[in-house]
Amino acid sequence: MSLPRISRFDLAHRVMSAGDAASLISDGMTVGMSGFTGSGYPKAVPLALATRIEAEHAAGRAMRVKVWTGASTGPELDGALAKANGVELRLPYNSDPIARERINRGEMEYLDMHLSQVAPVAWQGFLGPLDIAIVEVSGIRADGSLIPSSSVGNNKTWLDRANGVILEVNRWQNPALEGMHDIYYGTALPPHRVPIPLIRPDDRIGQPTFRCDPEKILAIVETDAPDRNAPFSPPDAVAGAIAGHLLEFFTHEVGRGRLPPSLLPLQSGVGNIANAVLTGLLDSPFEGMTAYTEVIQDGMLDLIDAGKLRMASATAFSLSPEAAARVNADMARYRDRMILRPQEISNHPELVRRLGCIAMNGLIEADIYGNVNSTHVMGSRIQNGIGGSGDFARNAYVSIFMTPSTAKRGAISAIVPHVSHVDHITQDVQVIVTEQGLADLRGLSPKQRAELVIERCAHPDYRPALRDYYLRARAGSYGQQSPMLPSEALSWHQRYIDTGTMRT
Amino acid sequence: MSLPRISRFDLAHRVMSAGDAASLISDGMTVGMSGFTGSGYPKAVPLALATRIEAEHAAGRAMRVKVWTGASTGPELDGALAKANGVELRLPYNSDPIARERINRGEMEYLDMHLSQVAPVAWQGFLGPLDIAIVEVSGIRADGSLIPSSSVGNNKTWLDRANGVILEVNRWQNPALEGMHDIYYGTALPPHRVPIPLIRPDDRIGQPTFRCDPEKILAIVETDAPDRNAPFSPPDAVAGAIAGHLLEFFTHEVGRGRLPPSLLPLQSGVGNIANAVLTGLLDSPFEGMTAYTEVIQDGMLDLIDAGKLRMASATAFSLSPEAAARVNADMARYRDRMILRPQEISNHPELVRRLGCIAMNGLIEADIYGNVNSTHVMGSRIQNGIGGSGDFARNAYVSIFMTPSTAKRGAISAIVPHVSHVDHITQDVQVIVTEQGLADLRGLSPKQRAELVIERCAHPDYRPALRDYYLRARAGSYGQQSPMLPSEALSWHQRYIDTGTMRT
Repeated sequence: MSLPRISRFDLAHRVMSAGDAASLISDGMTVGMSGFTGSGYPKAVPLALATRIEAEHAAGRAMRVKVWTGASTGPELDGALAKANGVELRLPYNSDPIARERINRGEMEYLDMHLSQVAPVAWQGFLGPLDIAIVEVSGIRADGSLIPSSSVGNNKTWLDRANGVILEVNRWQNPALEGMHDIYYGTALPPHRVPIPLIRPDDRIGQPTFRCDPEKILAIVETDAPDRNAPFSPPDAVAGAIAGHLLEFFTHEVGRGRLPPSLLPLQSGVGNIANAVLTGLLDSPFEGMTAYTEVIQDGMLDLIDAGKLRMASATAFSLSPEAAARVNADMARYRDRMILRPQEISNHPELVRRLGCIAMNGLIEADIYGNVNSTHVMGSRIQNGIGGSGDFARNAYVSIFMTPSTAKRGAISAIVPHVSHVDHITQDVQVIVTEQGLADLRGLSPKQRAELVIERCAHPDYRPALRDYYLRARAGSYGQQSPMLPSEALSWHQRYIDTGTMRT
Repeated sequence: MSLPRISRFDLAHRVMSAGDAASLISDGMTVGMSGFTGSGYPKAVPLALATRIEAEHAAGRAMRVKVWTGASTGPELDGALAKANGVELRLPYNSDPIARERINRGEMEYLDMHLSQVAPVAWQGFLGPLDIAIVEVSGIRADGSLIPSSSVGNNKTWLDRANGVILEVNRWQNPALEGMHDIYYGTALPPHRVPIPLIRPDDRIGQPTFRCDPEKILAIVETDAPDRNAPFSPPDAVAGAIAGHLLEFFTHEVGRGRLPPSLLPLQSGVGNIANAVLTGLLDSPFEGMTAYTEVIQDGMLDLIDAGKLRMASATAFSLSPEAAARVNADMARYRDRMILRPQEISNHPELVRRLGCIAMNGLIEADIYGNVNSTHVMGSRIQNGIGGSGDFARNAYVSIFMTPSTAKRGAISAIVPHVSHVDHITQDVQVIVTEQGLADLRGLSPKQRAELVIERCAHPDYRPALRDYYLRARAGSYGQQSPMLPSEALSWHQRYIDTGTMRT
């Protein structure tokens, strides 16, 4: 039954159970795992590792590992290992609720990194050696090369850097994935770096499979387990309004000749709002669009089906179960319209700048000057992480951030006097959109930005308090480039912590 | 007397006085000027324009212009125009004290931009048309091409974009500058961008002169006026200590094989501390070094003279009067060791990342987690601007920020609980150095970073208060990823505003 997936027969003797594979991992090791969103992460060995860690802990022995991945993964990886208290350090991104709780209780160290920089930083060496790679693949070819799964992430780097490799061969993944990937082997450390020869989202610059020294393969575990991506909510009125404002903006820019009629390569963050914008593009006049982004979401699939999106380049699928089934049923057709690449390429500043991506990302809060907090609730509690938003926002042709104007049933304003944490500085935030409206901040000074953000983006309930703060800051600030009152700037956050609402 | 500098004779009739040239500029125009630090800025027409504006104002008529440059300029440009209240909007960088005061009184709009992005943004069009370019050159060749001056900045873009061009031909500039510049004409707007073919700091990828349509040349003004760069202070004990810590770090990294023995291309911010570090490299074991940076300062000249620096690539000279005289006296020799490029190339993220620059920049304040404020004193008062620090810090191989641990005779701590403004997020700040010590923050979580920054970098007088804040934040923070107390986070700044010191 496994033969069609493992075509290199001399590796057959490395096939073992997940438990046996997990026993190769010991306390203190650094483990590089596959996985980017709920796609292509190993589904059996991390679970077995969690069981092993729980047994060690029960026996009074210490056991924790450092876990590197592509980005977020699934409950069988982050959830299980965090539940077992088996993770000493996690990088570069997490969205698992159990891991999030541990991080925010101070029980687990977390490095929140630019996703494009994980692979080069791993090569730089200061993070220490990578002991084991655990990588899900969809098959092993006769020549020993590995057919990637539904995400690429940092797998190339983990396979190259790790001292030992554990493969999960997942027969749930569609065999027609073969040929969809483009694994670029031209990266290097300086002074040996050269231009990356990609000039259009559809360029293929690498090979369809991973190289892997067979001598390093310690274990092969066969699985048949689905990816776990959450379904998207159908666009609600808020998401629909945000999408509407954005489409109007694109139309306006095309009309002025500042964007071509096919737009520029779209980058879209993960989530319901981002997906709603993609859905909105279905009814737009734009044709022949492309995407150069991190993940392929349901909305992009719809655009491909409608013939509006010519090509989507990403590092992973992030599809709802229904959409995944749709892709799996028709993979041979979709394969010509999609490319999955390593995340150091999907998010590379060189390429984002060259292609001129239209970056669309979510946020937790923005302040009146357009500083954006994407990561820390009330300045200290990590939600997920910066992900690729910094890779794209700083290098985009237009950098757009979008959010509902309030959260927690109105108790939190997404527009505040001063963000409690900064991930994106004003220079990298050019457009802010809420259901209230769109603020085009390009070419505006801080004070001009503030007036627009308050009047266009803030919820009407919070506008008077924002205006009041801003006017008093204009009157009493130490300097007038970006007026602020330090004693009051973070008072909205303190009020929320104290009373459960930012309202007075 | 002017003939050797203006070799295209049919332009002779465009030679006129600065006053006549200034009369071509009218209220509301956007003017793109040359200049990057005190080098290569126009020295006569802006002065005449300021006189004209003062006369208009005296006559009760409105007159202000929008001024775009490379970066900072000299007193005859920014100082004179700000004094005349003749500037409606200024971009992308200013360090002139008169202009700074106007900005901080709210009398002048100021766009503080990433220096690599000015040229592409000007092409994008949302800043509006560029009416006039005023560009200092060192000569006009017989074919009409222009020999650049002591800075390149955005001159190529201003000459290409402007509807009319005013040239200042400055015979003070050394004629041997000819051939030192490398003007790259391969940029474009997406979707037409291609890889920039530069793989080493010494690569020449363009031509030595600017193209300029002779039909656009409205005026030529002859000048004989020196650049105005401030002398550097000789390194004091604080600067010497910072340089010492940094050299120890480099030696350590070379020893571990994480940097080559010739290091990687150096980027160095402008100023006394940066210059002291360069001076410190004179006594280092590193040979065959290169620089890929914004400006060539005195310290780099010394390194070239000592045979330690093989090549320096920048967009401008920023030399003390003595060093400028030294270069001018021996230009033919230095010309082989220096290249001046457009700032969109000297600072291009694609190239900074590819070359793996070692970025060394100053700061106003850093917080315990390593967020850096480079621009806003007490969060609101602009000092200079972000300049190229963001271009380099995010894409560097190692991103280093350095500062004395206190300012204003100890009344201000450069290490604070929470920065009052963010220019560089923790992900882009890998090493912080003060005279107290060096904190290598690579691979550390926020809490690990905080402990190191407090113990290694803060002044001993401020350490107890920082430890106290951090411990209370660990106990009482909303979340424990980056512990903070919103009600207290900016209290040090408020105290300084209220009492003139951050000390309790």
